[in-house]
Amino acid sequence: MADTPLLPVRDLKAFDTADGAKPFASLLVVKKLLLKTASNGNPFMSVELGDRGGSFNCTIFGDSPAFEVLKSAGEGAVVRFEGKVDFYQGRFSPRAVRVTVVPEEELTAQPGVIENLVEVAPEDAGGLWTEFNTFIDGITHDELRMTVRSVFEEIGDAFRWSPAAVAMHHAYRHGLLEHTVHMARACQALSPLYPEVDADLAMAGILLHDTGKTIEYEGTLATKRSRRGILQGHVVLGYQLVRKAGLKAKLDADRLERLEHIVLSHQGEPEWGAAVYAATPEAVFVSMIDNLDAKMGMVQRALRQNPEQNEFSERLPGLNTMLLTKPVGKMGSSE
Amino acid sequence: MADTPLLPVRDLKAFDTADGAKPFASLLVVKKLLLKTASNGNPFMSVELGDRGGSFNCTIFGDSPAFEVLKSAGEGAVVRFEGKVDFYQGRFSPRAVRVTVVPEEELTAQPGVIENLVEVAPEDAGGLWTEFNTFIDGITHDELRMTVRSVFEEIGDAFRWSPAAVAMHHAYRHGLLEHTVHMARACQALSPLYPEVDADLAMAGILLHDTGKTIEYEGTLATKRSRRGILQGHVVLGYQLVRKAGLKAKLDADRLERLEHIVLSHQGEPEWGAAVYAATPEAVFVSMIDNLDAKMGMVQRALRQNPEQNEFSERLPGLNTMLLTKPVGKMGSSE
Amino acid sequence: MADTPLLPVRDLKAFDTADGAKPFASLLVVKKLLLKTASNGNPFMSVELGDRGGSFNCTIFGDSPAFEVLKSAGEGAVVRFEGKVDFYQGRFSPRAVRVTVVPEEELTAQPGVIENLVEVAPEDAGGLWTEFNTFIDGITHDELRMTVRSVFEEIGDAFRWSPAAVAMHHAYRHGLLEHTVHMARACQALSPLYPEVDADLAMAGILLHDTGKTIEYEGTLATKRSRRGILQGHVVLGYQLVRKAGLKAKLDADRLERLEHIVLSHQGEPEWGAAVYAATPEAVFVSMIDNLDAKMGMVQRALRQNPEQNEFSERLPGLNTMLLTKPVGKMGSSE
Amino acid sequence: MADTPLLPVRDLKAFDTADGAKPFASLLVVKKLLLKTASNGNPFMSVELGDRGGSFNCTIFGDSPAFEVLKSAGEGAVVRFEGKVDFYQGRFSPRAVRVTVVPEEELTAQPGVIENLVEVAPEDAGGLWTEFNTFIDGITHDELRMTVRSVFEEIGDAFRWSPAAVAMHHAYRHGLLEHTVHMARACQALSPLYPEVDADLAMAGILLHDTGKTIEYEGTLATKRSRRGILQGHVVLGYQLVRKAGLKAKLDADRLERLEHIVLSHQGEPEWGAAVYAATPEAVFVSMIDNLDAKMGMVQRALRQNPEQNEFSERLPGLNTMLLTKPVGKMGSSE
Amino acid sequence: MADTPLLPVRDLKAFDTADGAKPFASLLVVKKLLLKTASNGNPFMSVELGDRGGSFNCTIFGDSPAFEVLKSAGEGAVVRFEGKVDFYQGRFSPRAVRVTVVPEEELTAQPGVIENLVEVAPEDAGGLWTEFNTFIDGITHDELRMTVRSVFEEIGDAFRWSPAAVAMHHAYRHGLLEHTVHMARACQALSPLYPEVDADLAMAGILLHDTGKTIEYEGTLATKRSRRGILQGHVVLGYQLVRKAGLKAKLDADRLERLEHIVLSHQGEPEWGAAVYAATPEAVFVSMIDNLDAKMGMVQRALRQNPEQNEFSERLPGLNTMLLTKPVGKMGSSE
Amino acid sequence: MADTPLLPVRDLKAFDTADGAKPFASLLVVKKLLLKTASNGNPFMSVELGDRGGSFNCTIFGDSPAFEVLKSAGEGAVVRFEGKVDFYQGRFSPRAVRVTVVPEEELTAQPGVIENLVEVAPEDAGGLWTEFNTFIDGITHDELRMTVRSVFEEIGDAFRWSPAAVAMHHAYRHGLLEHTVHMARACQALSPLYPEVDADLAMAGILLHDTGKTIEYEGTLATKRSRRGILQGHVVLGYQLVRKAGLKAKLDADRLERLEHIVLSHQGEPEWGAAVYAATPEAVFVSMIDNLDAKMGMVQRALRQNPEQNEFSERLPGLNTMLLTKPVGKMGSSE
Repeated sequence: MADTPLLPVRDLKAFDTADGAKPFASLLVVKKLLLKTASNGNPFMSVELGDRGGSFNCTIFGDSPAFEVLKSAGEGAVVRFEGKVDFYQGRFSPRAVRVTVVPEEELTAQPGVIENLVEVAPEDAGGLWTEFNTFIDGITHDELRMTVRSVFEEIGDAFRWSPAAVAMHHAYRHGLLEHTVHMARACQALSPLYPEVDADLAMAGILLHDTGKTIEYEGTLATKRSRRGILQGHVVLGYQLVRKAGLKAKLDADRLERLEHIVLSHQGEPEWGAAVYAATPEAVFVSMIDNLDAKMGMVQRALRQNPEQNEFSERLPGLNTMLLTKPVGKMGSSE
Repeated sequence: MADTPLLPVRDLKAFDTADGAKPFASLLVVKKLLLKTASNGNPFMSVELGDRGGSFNCTIFGDSPAFEVLKSAGEGAVVRFEGKVDFYQGRFSPRAVRVTVVPEEELTAQPGVIENLVEVAPEDAGGLWTEFNTFIDGITHDELRMTVRSVFEEIGDAFRWSPAAVAMHHAYRHGLLEHTVHMARACQALSPLYPEVDADLAMAGILLHDTGKTIEYEGTLATKRSRRGILQGHVVLGYQLVRKAGLKAKLDADRLERLEHIVLSHQGEPEWGAAVYAATPEAVFVSMIDNLDAKMGMVQRALRQNPEQNEFSERLPGLNTMLLTKPVGKMGSSE
Repeated sequence: MADTPLLPVRDLKAFDTADGAKPFASLLVVKKLLLKTASNGNPFMSVELGDRGGSFNCTIFGDSPAFEVLKSAGEGAVVRFEGKVDFYQGRFSPRAVRVTVVPEEELTAQPGVIENLVEVAPEDAGGLWTEFNTFIDGITHDELRMTVRSVFEEIGDAFRWSPAAVAMHHAYRHGLLEHTVHMARACQALSPLYPEVDADLAMAGILLHDTGKTIEYEGTLATKRSRRGILQGHVVLGYQLVRKAGLKAKLDADRLERLEHIVLSHQGEPEWGAAVYAATPEAVFVSMIDNLDAKMGMVQRALRQNPEQNEFSERLPGLNTMLLTKPVGKMGSSE
Repeated sequence: MADTPLLPVRDLKAFDTADGAKPFASLLVVKKLLLKTASNGNPFMSVELGDRGGSFNCTIFGDSPAFEVLKSAGEGAVVRFEGKVDFYQGRFSPRAVRVTVVPEEELTAQPGVIENLVEVAPEDAGGLWTEFNTFIDGITHDELRMTVRSVFEEIGDAFRWSPAAVAMHHAYRHGLLEHTVHMARACQALSPLYPEVDADLAMAGILLHDTGKTIEYEGTLATKRSRRGILQGHVVLGYQLVRKAGLKAKLDADRLERLEHIVLSHQGEPEWGAAVYAATPEAVFVSMIDNLDAKMGMVQRALRQNPEQNEFSERLPGLNTMLLTKPVGKMGSSE
Repeated sequence: MADTPLLPVRDLKAFDTADGAKPFASLLVVKKLLLKTASNGNPFMSVELGDRGGSFNCTIFGDSPAFEVLKSAGEGAVVRFEGKVDFYQGRFSPRAVRVTVVPEEELTAQPGVIENLVEVAPEDAGGLWTEFNTFIDGITHDELRMTVRSVFEEIGDAFRWSPAAVAMHHAYRHGLLEHTVHMARACQALSPLYPEVDADLAMAGILLHDTGKTIEYEGTLATKRSRRGILQGHVVLGYQLVRKAGLKAKLDADRLERLEHIVLSHQGEPEWGAAVYAATPEAVFVSMIDNLDAKMGMVQRALRQNPEQNEFSERLPGLNTMLLTKPVGKMGSSE
Repeated sequence: MADTPLLPVRDLKAFDTADGAKPFASLLVVKKLLLKTASNGNPFMSVELGDRGGSFNCTIFGDSPAFEVLKSAGEGAVVRFEGKVDFYQGRFSPRAVRVTVVPEEELTAQPGVIENLVEVAPEDAGGLWTEFNTFIDGITHDELRMTVRSVFEEIGDAFRWSPAAVAMHHAYRHGLLEHTVHMARACQALSPLYPEVDADLAMAGILLHDTGKTIEYEGTLATKRSRRGILQGHVVLGYQLVRKAGLKAKLDADRLERLEHIVLSHQGEPEWGAAVYAATPEAVFVSMIDNLDAKMGMVQRALRQNPEQNEFSERLPGLNTMLLTKPVGKMGSSE
């Protein structure tokens, strides 16, 4: 990309006032961007820039060449930021010298680059996507399988990189794909135990239940809720995707209504976002598997992030407690 | 309809065991109908029949000619019921002699007949409907007005007789039309005071916000939630109606999304059924007018139903209290 | 048992006043028994008797020979009740002529007898118990397996007939065994998908999680909460059982503490009875499987109980809605 | 006021360590003032000073002449602050050189001065007050009108400058007057639509409903809850004001009790501060209009504060969401 | 009172259809009275009559002499009811022959009469009242003591017979006096342990905290909420009583405000009716003693009402459980 | 301890950048200690050190001699910290020069040392402990008294220094002992007023109710929840202690079960941690006294911490309000 070494945010934060005006370069995501007007009427922007290890704020005035670059790049863009060390109110807040946008192709071309910018699902995205397609192929009812296919043709790649949430579970790149594949595995394992559940319908419901999130969230690296996400929510957006695809695939009205119902009810309780309570065997089944894998996803991430030395994780909001991260039998108990 | 005088349920309940086997005839709504199988394998049905003044249960065996009549008529039908006085466990539970279905045309042909069968909105439905159409005509934005028109062409007459709720406010025939017209009046009165609200969009949102209820409820006389009502809910059903109509009327995408958002958010809180919180000036405005007229509708009904002698109404669940029904200044206070 | 045909409660309720004083005999469970004192100082009892199809109340005075029989038999006993048809306040309320206690052995000796008295799990209890023992044998860690064995030796048969709940899910004879086996099956199916979960510990936790219910509930046919159930609750009672067995089996302190934690946290939320939030991978896993199978158990029971003619079940409190009971694809949808 | 230019807080915050000890002067509100004792026994104070654009903390020791000036001025006073630039823990924290109190008359004498110190209602306070009096004059019932007049004579000017809340809606100077006038306008517009509401009583209730806030809040520029506000709350304080005025105006007992009831119930739910649930048509009507205008006030303020470039406002706690601030039809939707 | 023996309701309920038209006489409280209009326009009333042991409904037509007697007597009156045995829908529902009002003096003249009509506090009301006055005399601060005296002069006898609640704790005749005396005893016992609490102020607060209930409830035998109770609530009514008395007794403003605050905050949480949270040491102390004695009052009543044979009481809504009523050490535990 | 004066944290925070590299020494508690790994693979720790007046963070690298000292000392240790003044991101963050652990004996040997490190109960711990033992001696039932003795022999000294909570009430050294003695005093004062409460059982329950906290919390100076505290909670831990001691003391099964029940139910509501609702007179009594003294403890602490000049305390989360801290009658009210 360039010859100067690119410093991660962790290193930038190690600078102190003695380093004032030192030049540096970094590869950063535009995490937040607010346009403002100074009391003298001049425009400026307050921008938060960061990578996986942290972020900092900086103010850029309207007459800086970086102003227009960042304004048109927008939130979620990745930029090569060349600046000079500076501080504001005791915090690192550099002056921008030159800012250039780095296209997504360039990022994905080099291994490890995106992983340094944002958290990424631990399992390989390519492998997950292959497995995901196997689950689609395994649906035996033709129109149902075509309905599922049709939705993924419509939404395209977004499904592969989207996180499953902004803050709670599987909240990282590819998290949606990972969570969906994990649910599909659980569905396949449990279906034989609950014969009253139509396995095809449950599997189709699982594959589709969160597809509205590909519209609710936007930005491939700095995720935020889109206008449609705020005005409609992923439950209704997913319902709409499924309905359109089902009509196109000529899925029979009974199955289509049940499939739509799985999407509308999978959040469990209205106060968590469900449009209605689950009222078919398949909808109850899917919403319980969703809940199970969401919680287990929080467990898995806490285990990954906790170095072996600490006995417990930090308090996990989704579990309402700290998690014991030490493996079973490795050490004596507290008694 | 026939020559024997038709007795209302209130009179049927006045019979006592001394009247055993006395013949009678009544005009009744089939309120609930459950098919069952006796331990000997024979089919029978438990049916609840009633009019505005009350209801009673009766059991009809599979070999009675009334069995097939009622089974194919279904819940919500109106029947001429000829029976003989009988009691079961001390309660009135007549034997059916002859049951004939009365077609809806016949009911509406005679004034007062429907009013005796179910509670009806106090204002004249014809007048309300005329006024309703004036509100549609008052929408100045062409595609918006055409969108509204298109929804009402799609749902047809159901909107005119549907209640606004099964149990809470405006829960009576024509209640949905009445509630919507009352909200439209309030919208017209308040729009000049809140210029940040787009008056056309707010009015269109009000006229359409509850149209999903014409699908959520079924039965013109004995209302119950339909299969689609249970599996999708009126919020999503209304959203779908509006979306289809807006696309057909070529409404611009910005307005259509805002109109859909009004429908999706009008219930206020997710736990009351809103898909998302109101996030546009018009959506906030419509949800507050909905809330205001719903509460005032409970007040109006309690005032109508309370004879002048009692100072307070019964406890009203929607208001969490009894209502002081005595007019202002008519009597001294309690001090 | 005897020569007079024994009438089920459903038939008793078909009697009417014309049958006054007719003699009859029935096999009945003593569902509730309250001792009272009349204003003249004489003792009497109000007793509720019933079978699977219903129940009725009857008053028995202190000078009746049935009084002492029932008083010493107590709630939950099964009696052969010979009486004469009578009514009180319009309800069936027979006079007792002769009451004899039927020992449990006699009941289980004849197939179908218990099934007529109370609801019984649909799967065969013997088969479930065999499968249950296979799950115990499958635990590879010796002290863990011995801990599990030890608990079931301590509580004995009660585990095999106890319901899993008084009112919510699997609330019928053998329901606890059935629910536990269903959870063990799910555990076995899901363990390979969540390798961070110690499969042995999770399985042991599942087999033991509800064992406190064998003490919380008492009575093999008319279940009610025992004194210890009211004063301590099944979570603490189960914890105590597990702790005692673990110490006896010399289970290492780390595993014992984790196993106790599964029992203490399996209810999920403190307001549902959990002593603490689940804070180990195994405890999160077990509580989610418990929740999944509890909900699916409600679905299964609703499907069993709903004759094919009705499209929806009654409203199920545990699911907050009615359940669509018609099989997929059997009929067109509501559109 | 003086010859040195007075710098707003925004400019003070632009100083950096290089400006150390530079003299400056500002016009500031005393926002918070805490008296403390150092470990050596000497008194000092920690004081927060600010204007509309921000605030900073500074420590003033007991031997500084500014100490006594600020101690006797108290929270809410406006001072001319002359100081020297300094920093503490990296934050701006100047040394005080000379502090003088600026009397309120002087502030209001110069246009724009108060507007720079605190947020002010957008509508002209004089015009709102004139309109407010027209609403009083429009009450046709003599004793009712006299009761309203009497309350405003008692509380005097405080009503004109008080905010309607510390944090939620209309939380700025004149906000209480503005909110009350907006409600009165809505009342006038809606009264003809709800004839069961006594228009005079509803209007009187609206004009008086929040008058307790003039006692609950104190300080004209830095508002905080007063001792009486904490110990009694504005609902009870307003009730007391209305009761006293009604007795003085010889208002009939029936109307007085209903008027008091409007004040006691206008908050809607006990958990939001209502003493009782609204139980008269007028009380239901007033509490719903209060709710409507409170929410619309949040919308209006968010629209005012949001520069055109941002599509959505920040998350508004009172609406539980971000607000779409872009005008209808100005841009395409997100589709 | 009369020569025919007066039958309690328990005996009336023992009549069966064989007793049809048998004459009887009873002393009964008018518990509920609803005026209605028949479809033929004739007035009638539905009245609930009862004594301590139960109640029944009966319908009285406008042309019966009993109609006017009951209409003017109103709810809460005690009547001598002469009637003939009859049944309606299988329930006891006599025909009224002659109804005469029994004045309160006559009731209290004969020992045991009131105790048969309603539940009465177990402690002697005269003794409680004497003790109550000792607590007033014990207040050392003169104006505070005079304030307390003054309130009880104002409300008079009502305080001595009023229940402390309609449904929850101490919900019986003299219950308010009993509960207040119990709290005063606890206050006296605990004051030395919490010296930061002003003992005089806490005692005055306790004696006065519930005095608003003498206005909130009306009727000495069939208690119901009065118009002022519904429109203002006992918290505000008590505050008003205290304020008036304090001003009259020239209590200093500081103490009066604190005393009013105790009344306004004693319910603990706004959702339980507190106007504000307790914010003085005395107010926290009083609200906690109130809570303690309310719960202990439920315990005491459950112990009184439970015959020794049953181990547990019925489920007590205020305690969310059944109460173990067997004395300590009388029997072995359940183990 | 040493010759350099030991500076409290308050003085350390007064250093500014001009003092860079100045040497100092302090006596500090290790409040939090997190082991981390730098990107170059080297270990370092982030440690929070503090005394009663505040705390600061500092980073210590693996090659510093202080690293191993602190790692083996662990959280809760007291150290003599010799360092050099430094800042990070504008905050005080010194470099460690020499760190030595100070044994607990040395701390307690010098009066005032512990008081400077952490907040300590205002009453003398020795006196509280003597009084505590008098309450044990006062239990007349032998096995009950022996059960109580046995628990305190088991848990030893921890009970004397443990706080009663991490954050809410009596959250300071000796707080648990202080809170328990205060409850015992209240129990003694109130027992004669509630004769249905077994005084011995209630007193034993009070002395034991929170003993599980000696296991739930660990660290004598920097309290945190232990592994057992997180996995079982103090309610279950206390129950286990009581059960073991009761069995050892051969307490009769009835009393033991009731005593265990007091521990299991004392938190009042399941959502606050109670295993079951209080269902015996003693358990209701104890849980209400616990609640009363917890609230009064918050009042007492707020009064202690508030200098006389401020009329109100800060907002107290446990009381949901600010507390009026000015003594009664010292100043006029706000009117």
